[in-house]
Amino acid sequence: MSADGKISTKDRVQVKISNDDDLKRVDKLKCGIDAIMVGIGTILADDPSLTVKSGECPNPTRVVVDSRARTPLDAEILHKGDGERIILVSEAAPLERISALSEYAQIVIAGEDQVDLRAGLLELKRQGIDRIMVEGGGTLNWSLFAGGLVDELYTYIGGLVVGGVDAPTLVDGDGFSINESLIPLELIDFKQLGNGVLLRWSVKRV
Amino acid sequence: MSADGKISTKDRVQVKISNDDDLKRVDKLKCGIDAIMVGIGTILADDPSLTVKSGECPNPTRVVVDSRARTPLDAEILHKGDGERIILVSEAAPLERISALSEYAQIVIAGEDQVDLRAGLLELKRQGIDRIMVEGGGTLNWSLFAGGLVDELYTYIGGLVVGGVDAPTLVDGDGFSINESLIPLELIDFKQLGNGVLLRWSVKRV
Repeated sequence: MSADGKISTKDRVQVKISNDDDLKRVDKLKCGIDAIMVGIGTILADDPSLTVKSGECPNPTRVVVDSRARTPLDAEILHKGDGERIILVSEAAPLERISALSEYAQIVIAGEDQVDLRAGLLELKRQGIDRIMVEGGGTLNWSLFAGGLVDELYTYIGGLVVGGVDAPTLVDGDGFSINESLIPLELIDFKQLGNGVLLRWSVKRV
Repeated sequence: MSADGKISTKDRVQVKISNDDDLKRVDKLKCGIDAIMVGIGTILADDPSLTVKSGECPNPTRVVVDSRARTPLDAEILHKGDGERIILVSEAAPLERISALSEYAQIVIAGEDQVDLRAGLLELKRQGIDRIMVEGGGTLNWSLFAGGLVDELYTYIGGLVVGGVDAPTLVDGDGFSINESLIPLELIDFKQLGNGVLLRWSVKRV
């Protein structure tokens, strides 16, 4: 995120916040996980492939959280590189979209109107996926934190101010009120990477 | 700010993000400046006094940026502790409010509808105020960044996730679009303070 907590501009245009060292770090992380997950907003805004750029390991299973099955049929994630794809959808997803996407990805239906993340993650675990890396965006991050489904948080804070009440932040969604439980974190580690700092937090279980 | 870039909850309820070491650091900073400045939103939400808690130096001049002169007459900042107060208002501020507030503070009028920060800062400089510390909130921070009026940025990042598209962030306001200039920062320094990290950035002049 930027020095003021943003992950893109208000127009959802991707901003180069990370530097090459950080991108390599993230690429390496992909070799120690079973799956990488993003929300549909990130697919529509950035069209990432989520492949391992170095080629040092096979691509992890790529997972899209996509309640209405809106992933475009020509999305990079469905076509670039080898490896399994899974799209988590809800029962509200149109059948013809599910049918079309099922040519490129395994479709997992969990939840009525929105993806039930806990149920979806349990199904992934049943399939042998224990370690998942989530690359956002802010709405998916929120749903995972709100559901108590996060173990660790890595944030790279880069040397930029983006600003904007409408700019996406690391954790968006409804947000916690003071009366509910904010999520307490514990700082595990931090280090400089280029013109920024990488923080590693663990979620405190309370 | 929280680990996800928020400075309060969506309900603008203050959250304890800093720890005691960081609060002492901020208090010490107040002894090396000429004035401390906040926006009216922060006055209305938090009612801070902005005094030097340690008593190690006189209170710096306290400045409120308050286009419509909405500072309450019983605001802590007007009553607690010795020292000068200045309220920057615009020409749109009601005369009776200006008159009432002028019993407690020097009133500086700058700008038509909103405070013209550049003009206001020039007037402060004319009065011998060279070094100003701004304590937010996000709207004032935005106006200062957008106006090219910031030299350095300190952020303490604490171990909490707040979340929320509507939660105030470090820099709010309109925000930059990708086509305009994002503000480039250079990392000067960073260190752990309790369960969080303090980052010090300088604004790169381009």
